Amino acid sequence: MRFFSDNAASVHPRLLEALVEANVQDTAYDGDGLTARLNGAFSDLFETEVEALWVATGTAANSLALAAMCQPHQGVICHKEAHIEQDEAGAPGFFTGGAKLMLLDGPGAKLSPETVEAHCAAIRDDVHQVQPAVVSITNASEYGMVYRPDEVAELSAVCKARGLGLHMDGARFANAVGTLGCAPADLTWKAGVDALSFGFVKNGGMSAEALIFFDRELAADTHYRRKRAGHLQSKGRYLAAQILAMLDHDLWLDNARAANAGAQIIANAARDRLLYPVEANEVFIKLSADEAAKLRGLGFDFYDWGEGQARLVTSWNQSADDIRPLADAINAL
Amino acid sequence: MRFFSDNAASVHPRLLEALVEANVQDTAYDGDGLTARLNGAFSDLFETEVEALWVATGTAANSLALAAMCQPHQGVICHKEAHIEQDEAGAPGFFTGGAKLMLLDGPGAKLSPETVEAHCAAIRDDVHQVQPAVVSITNASEYGMVYRPDEVAELSAVCKARGLGLHMDGARFANAVGTLGCAPADLTWKAGVDALSFGFVKNGGMSAEALIFFDRELAADTHYRRKRAGHLQSKGRYLAAQILAMLDHDLWLDNARAANAGAQIIANAARDRLLYPVEANEVFIKLSADEAAKLRGLGFDFYDWGEGQARLVTSWNQSADDIRPLADAINAL
Amino acid sequence: MRFFSDNAASVHPRLLEALVEANVQDTAYDGDGLTARLNGAFSDLFETEVEALWVATGTAANSLALAAMCQPHQGVICHKEAHIEQDEAGAPGFFTGGAKLMLLDGPGAKLSPETVEAHCAAIRDDVHQVQPAVVSITNASEYGMVYRPDEVAELSAVCKARGLGLHMDGARFANAVGTLGCAPADLTWKAGVDALSFGFVKNGGMSAEALIFFDRELAADTHYRRKRAGHLQSKGRYLAAQILAMLDHDLWLDNARAANAGAQIIANAARDRLLYPVEANEVFIKLSADEAAKLRGLGFDFYDWGEGQARLVTSWNQSADDIRPLADAINAL
Amino acid sequence: MRFFSDNAASVHPRLLEALVEANVQDTAYDGDGLTARLNGAFSDLFETEVEALWVATGTAANSLALAAMCQPHQGVICHKEAHIEQDEAGAPGFFTGGAKLMLLDGPGAKLSPETVEAHCAAIRDDVHQVQPAVVSITNASEYGMVYRPDEVAELSAVCKARGLGLHMDGARFANAVGTLGCAPADLTWKAGVDALSFGFVKNGGMSAEALIFFDRELAADTHYRRKRAGHLQSKGRYLAAQILAMLDHDLWLDNARAANAGAQIIANAARDRLLYPVEANEVFIKLSADEAAKLRGLGFDFYDWGEGQARLVTSWNQSADDIRPLADAINAL
Repeated sequence: MRFFSDNAASVHPRLLEALVEANVQDTAYDGDGLTARLNGAFSDLFETEVEALWVATGTAANSLALAAMCQPHQGVICHKEAHIEQDEAGAPGFFTGGAKLMLLDGPGAKLSPETVEAHCAAIRDDVHQVQPAVVSITNASEYGMVYRPDEVAELSAVCKARGLGLHMDGARFANAVGTLGCAPADLTWKAGVDALSFGFVKNGGMSAEALIFFDRELAADTHYRRKRAGHLQSKGRYLAAQILAMLDHDLWLDNARAANAGAQIIANAARDRLLYPVEANEVFIKLSADEAAKLRGLGFDFYDWGEGQARLVTSWNQSADDIRPLADAINAL
Repeated sequence: MRFFSDNAASVHPRLLEALVEANVQDTAYDGDGLTARLNGAFSDLFETEVEALWVATGTAANSLALAAMCQPHQGVICHKEAHIEQDEAGAPGFFTGGAKLMLLDGPGAKLSPETVEAHCAAIRDDVHQVQPAVVSITNASEYGMVYRPDEVAELSAVCKARGLGLHMDGARFANAVGTLGCAPADLTWKAGVDALSFGFVKNGGMSAEALIFFDRELAADTHYRRKRAGHLQSKGRYLAAQILAMLDHDLWLDNARAANAGAQIIANAARDRLLYPVEANEVFIKLSADEAAKLRGLGFDFYDWGEGQARLVTSWNQSADDIRPLADAINAL
Repeated sequence: MRFFSDNAASVHPRLLEALVEANVQDTAYDGDGLTARLNGAFSDLFETEVEALWVATGTAANSLALAAMCQPHQGVICHKEAHIEQDEAGAPGFFTGGAKLMLLDGPGAKLSPETVEAHCAAIRDDVHQVQPAVVSITNASEYGMVYRPDEVAELSAVCKARGLGLHMDGARFANAVGTLGCAPADLTWKAGVDALSFGFVKNGGMSAEALIFFDRELAADTHYRRKRAGHLQSKGRYLAAQILAMLDHDLWLDNARAANAGAQIIANAARDRLLYPVEANEVFIKLSADEAAKLRGLGFDFYDWGEGQARLVTSWNQSADDIRPLADAINAL
Repeated sequence: MRFFSDNAASVHPRLLEALVEANVQDTAYDGDGLTARLNGAFSDLFETEVEALWVATGTAANSLALAAMCQPHQGVICHKEAHIEQDEAGAPGFFTGGAKLMLLDGPGAKLSPETVEAHCAAIRDDVHQVQPAVVSITNASEYGMVYRPDEVAELSAVCKARGLGLHMDGARFANAVGTLGCAPADLTWKAGVDALSFGFVKNGGMSAEALIFFDRELAADTHYRRKRAGHLQSKGRYLAAQILAMLDHDLWLDNARAANAGAQIIANAARDRLLYPVEANEVFIKLSADEAAKLRGLGFDFYDWGEGQARLVTSWNQSADDIRPLADAINAL
């Protein structure tokens, strides 16, 4: 059983069914009937008028959002462990035309209002220094922790006072909502988020993520940038079909809750080893090289995460029965 | 019956079956077993060692190829009607960091060795003028004409003499091969092509194209650029699955031949109206506004192509019986 | 006597004197007392509030202006013989982040309202095609012809109707004003120009041009872009000193008129050979290879300008006596 | 007396004289006789064949050097207090097409071989992470400390083992050489430096810096990039004249030694307050707000450098008599 990555999991069968259903002639690019339903579906989900664009990857969603909010000569404040800094090969620099990522520290890969404010305050207001334009947070964070609505709102207050936009990388937004039990609106626009990368691929999807603009003015140029980046697929309706299947009957939430529940099983077994509170579908634990070898010997795969640490990720399709053996094995170490 | 675009056609069922078969856990990004088979499959097809990368769109394939062959301060020679100039929203400028497209003329959207040579000769060899680094041709061309292997080789000779790379936009490469009946090798590396955007989406595919490097040194940095452009999908195996299904038993060629055959039916009916020889799956004809209205009244859809002209595109899934009514209607005008 | 280029001429002594006068300690970058006087000096000259930035080259001035008016995914309409297309090594693509130059034709390197309107009308309003954002004209043009205020206003009317900005490359703006005898205001903001690259270097300057924003909102980000492009000189006061010396007692206009007068002497001698009306300090003439050799044998240098043509440029420091021998030699051919 | 910045100082009179001498007609851009002498002059100075390009600013020199050594998808390792990170408005990101600056720590704004090696070792060798391509060090550093030849060589050894280029920002290279008393060759190419931004403006220059390529292959494309960035001045001979005047009879070294000597006078007076060893022309001292106010009350200007700290910079034209009053005032605090 592999706990490497939720990207390694299979696709939920309902999405494959949706592809088959979508397999008729329709208008190319984003002129089709399925894509036409996205704005409405997301506006319903978020209880406000939003503009939604499909893209194939979270990297593209994040970078398009940042490019909409940040000029080439400006900066993006994010955590030094943020995915946009660590794992996107410099994509934000590419899409923005060279904007700088400004890296802050903080436990659990989370930003605090204080560190953001202190960073901004330390920048001289002159043309020699890059001025920040946007803050990007990841929810759930890269260490599987969530920002609660009030935490987002406090960050947003700093942003608004400084004239900065607020972007949320929601590669695991579903997991965060699943844990918090809040309305998606509470965690986003009501807390001041301007744009959300709403991830589906790690959550049982195949090749479609959604970029949601709560500030819809940001969307206009993004349509051009998406095409210019080669992300306007000519048969976009097959991406829309996946997303609509995810939204249908809250499949996205069911999948996330299943993955979260799996993580809790591991967390309970590894209570003394936890490096971070487990608030999504990732479990970071202390694990010696010997222990890691022992687990691997039993057939469990996962990432080493630096010296004496490991990352275990659960997926939408792993049942309690799938995960129990790992929990037992950890208990038995 | 719609003759708007081969992008509007449905996906071949075998690709959907391949997605279902691929729907098991595997390594993320391009570390999976299906992706691992691509280089071999294309090397077999092209009878030489190639490196192949999946991407979601032809625009991405073209732009990544050009970025591998052209520095930001250099230029790309192409036809003024080339897709990269007309329909990609400036993507080549984005991926290359601002390289200039140098636009040449020529019948049927085809370049000739003479115009390329003349263009190069007119550029002063100094730092004030952008120097070309690559020639990009489209085969089949934007007007449905093909370059034969000897034509490609003649262009390549000019390129080699000038130190330029040669890229082929093969959004309809399958249609060209189907018409020419040549080996894919003859039309590409044996004729001097360094990189090929091998299109599948217009030919019954869903969301996967292949970027083929005959000059494999060009591929190394492209892996980074693909990721940086947000085009390294985390479940890339579903793209590989589509492509492998296309290559299996030459489905790509069957599909293209079917579409080409449909175009010939129309061409025969419209012999006196043809604006260009019909050598792929596109038919450009003279058609008055009245005639166009008449055809539309009968349920046929297509693009107006400037004053008194129309573009009709056939697809892999249109049978002779599907197309005959259009041919008859044109005959009856 | 060299008629190659006004760039080859020496610097007016008053500018060197101004450098000596400026040679005291002052605040670095653009915080000095001389730079502080620029906005006022140009506002006086143009009879409206403008914002003025010094830069070292016309290429930088043009590109910074275009970057202020054009997003990376948009386009700049210009003449196919425009300096920004022909002689700036792709600088507009660099500064704008990859925007496309859209090349129009027209006699004397001048754009007409009709060609601009026709070009815009032919662009589909969809994301596949690059949309224009700005028109750039050169006054005096690359062939030494001027736009009159009413011509600029007619172009501006097209721009305004289409939502496009209007930039004027004024590398030889002084020569145009000298010829037209109009107020600088009439040729610029009163005729709808948003930004002007006001050239001094070809006109007796050394290393300082001015970028003038009539639409002052465009200036704000330009301060950042200038620094980011390495064009904010730390001893900027020596650039400001040059420009102020140029504006003092209309030295810029005297210099331009001197150069223009020289061109008229040649034009009179070469009346039957003229390729374009001589409206600035450039004379383009028919000249056979034999004739060119003959002139060169007499010590006159100039550019061949394609087959059987030559370009002769006069400078601020060439007197009638300096030029008469060339005129006589042409007469004697 | 101002101790704000060496950028605020005046220009050495010999440079102004050189401008006057250069004030004759010559070929435009970099085709003139003075520019033609630069490669030879610097090759003599560095005792090896180098290629030298003038540019107007250190920011341009640094960024052009980095662009020659780093692809857009790669990274530049530098100190977190490096000028390229702190004071160039994101210029490296602009010139490189979005490359990432990778920020390391270390006393006195100096990098150590250990931190560079550790940083490189921590980067996964996969496409998700930006790979470094070049290390940039500043000598003398932003805190007025020097790298000795052996320190540079040790850094270079790490670079070579990792396949990284080595760039030296020498805005105060003259001050470093002045302090070390070594040959320029020892501090640069003999210690493994590939490219040097050789600063003159802070050292009595006006508007000309030199970019020196020891690896001359890096220079070829840089000629295009310089033009494309608007940094190829049409009257470049006036920049070459400044630089040649600086090299003549080692004026650059005399100026630097004068400034360094001034800094030592202050350092001696402020021995108990020094934050860093004084090895160039910058003195960083502990200074309370009250003490700062007292010094300012006496007519001395300088930068506050964070809480309770100050930066004092001496210039080429400040004699011991000029500086003594400040030293005395500090002593008297």
